[in-house]
Amino acid sequence: MSGHLAVIGLGPGDARYLTPEAQAALAAAEALYGYGPYLDRAPVRDGQSRHASDNRQEGARATAALAHAAAGASVAMVSGGDPGVFAMAAAVCEELAAGPETWRSLDITIVPGVTAMLAVAAQAGAPLGHDFCALSLSDNLKPWDLIERRLDAAAGAGFVIALYNPVSRARPWQLGAALERLRRHLPPTTPVVFGRAVGRSDARVTVTTLQDADAGAADMATLIIVGSATTRVIVRPGRAPLVYTPRSATEAGA
Amino acid sequence: MSGHLAVIGLGPGDARYLTPEAQAALAAAEALYGYGPYLDRAPVRDGQSRHASDNRQEGARATAALAHAAAGASVAMVSGGDPGVFAMAAAVCEELAAGPETWRSLDITIVPGVTAMLAVAAQAGAPLGHDFCALSLSDNLKPWDLIERRLDAAAGAGFVIALYNPVSRARPWQLGAALERLRRHLPPTTPVVFGRAVGRSDARVTVTTLQDADAGAADMATLIIVGSATTRVIVRPGRAPLVYTPRSATEAGA
Repeated sequence: MSGHLAVIGLGPGDARYLTPEAQAALAAAEALYGYGPYLDRAPVRDGQSRHASDNRQEGARATAALAHAAAGASVAMVSGGDPGVFAMAAAVCEELAAGPETWRSLDITIVPGVTAMLAVAAQAGAPLGHDFCALSLSDNLKPWDLIERRLDAAAGAGFVIALYNPVSRARPWQLGAALERLRRHLPPTTPVVFGRAVGRSDARVTVTTLQDADAGAADMATLIIVGSATTRVIVRPGRAPLVYTPRSATEAGA
Repeated sequence: MSGHLAVIGLGPGDARYLTPEAQAALAAAEALYGYGPYLDRAPVRDGQSRHASDNRQEGARATAALAHAAAGASVAMVSGGDPGVFAMAAAVCEELAAGPETWRSLDITIVPGVTAMLAVAAQAGAPLGHDFCALSLSDNLKPWDLIERRLDAAAGAGFVIALYNPVSRARPWQLGAALERLRRHLPPTTPVVFGRAVGRSDARVTVTTLQDADAGAADMATLIIVGSATTRVIVRPGRAPLVYTPRSATEAGA
């Protein structure tokens, strides 16, 4: 089977995060698949076809791209951030596993990218400087009580927590419930970072505390980092505060 | 204070992961600081001074770079992967917090990069496609029982686990102990990925299971991803297997 599928991470926001490997993979493709706003960020090349789909159609999009590659084409699937983190690479693997046996001989490449939590952390300082976890707050594909169990485990053991997919029109209450859950484990003064549209011209990063964190301040383009009990804030005159988690720790809670 | 310090992620391995933002930040610096092998990966520019230091001297290196920037220079600190993940950004914040008050008015930029676990995951498929955590196995800066507690919490709650700093000359037994600990929580068939020197020409990615995982196969350049109970492997004729964690989950253990 001669086709090829590249699943490509664009990084967050504009082209400043697009790696040379991702640029080369985009340029080599005959057909690009992806969520419309991500496709719009891929540089245009003559002779490339573009196949935009809606945000929630990951499975159908993966299947279409795999079928197109299986027909012999060089296909690229674009993904915001890193394709392996709550994004298209897993969807492609799921559809490959469920699809025709012949798909398994396809040449598949995953091109990593800067995922949102790294870009938000960089804007804020170094909140992910010690052990951390990444958790999607979407309960579309897992039950809410599992999310709560994971929040308990992560906060209780001293992991910093990056929250992906904090809110959507269909999921308005989950972030508030998650913050409330975390307040059981962490001091009220625990630093919390809201990073919205990081990597874009309208990026906004705000630093608050767990007691003051307002779920209403987040939207679909927001990633949230909740510190651990060791996370600190450096206040700076005339500059944004720096949030960091020291590399050393003595016990889970301190 | 007119100086500037940029803490720059080079990504793993060669220049294919160096973002345009990182390239620009490297080119703008008068002085580069970093661990020697990382400095060697930064493109050479006339008129730049280079200050290499040993692997374990993060604090002294951060202090030297901050002092140089405070003297008015445009300084870059290079870091492999992402500077915010078990790397130099937290060390810079620690030294800034402990240093002279005047350092707080310094202009500091953190430039994110592709961290090792994303590059290893991309080579293997999509093992980080669901909730995951990143844990350093180094017990230089935290006690071993805290690491064990975090392994228990993460595996017990169904997180995929990326293990950074699995082994060094001074830490020969920790990875074996961690794998043994994880065997208490996870099925023997849980997929495990060893990624060595990913992003370099001598990269090697191997897929095994938790029961067969051999700590002796890892060295300082290795990153290990231990799946959850939901992580799957797609066997492919004539191609490397694809390891992925489906986006959906029903409960922590399955």
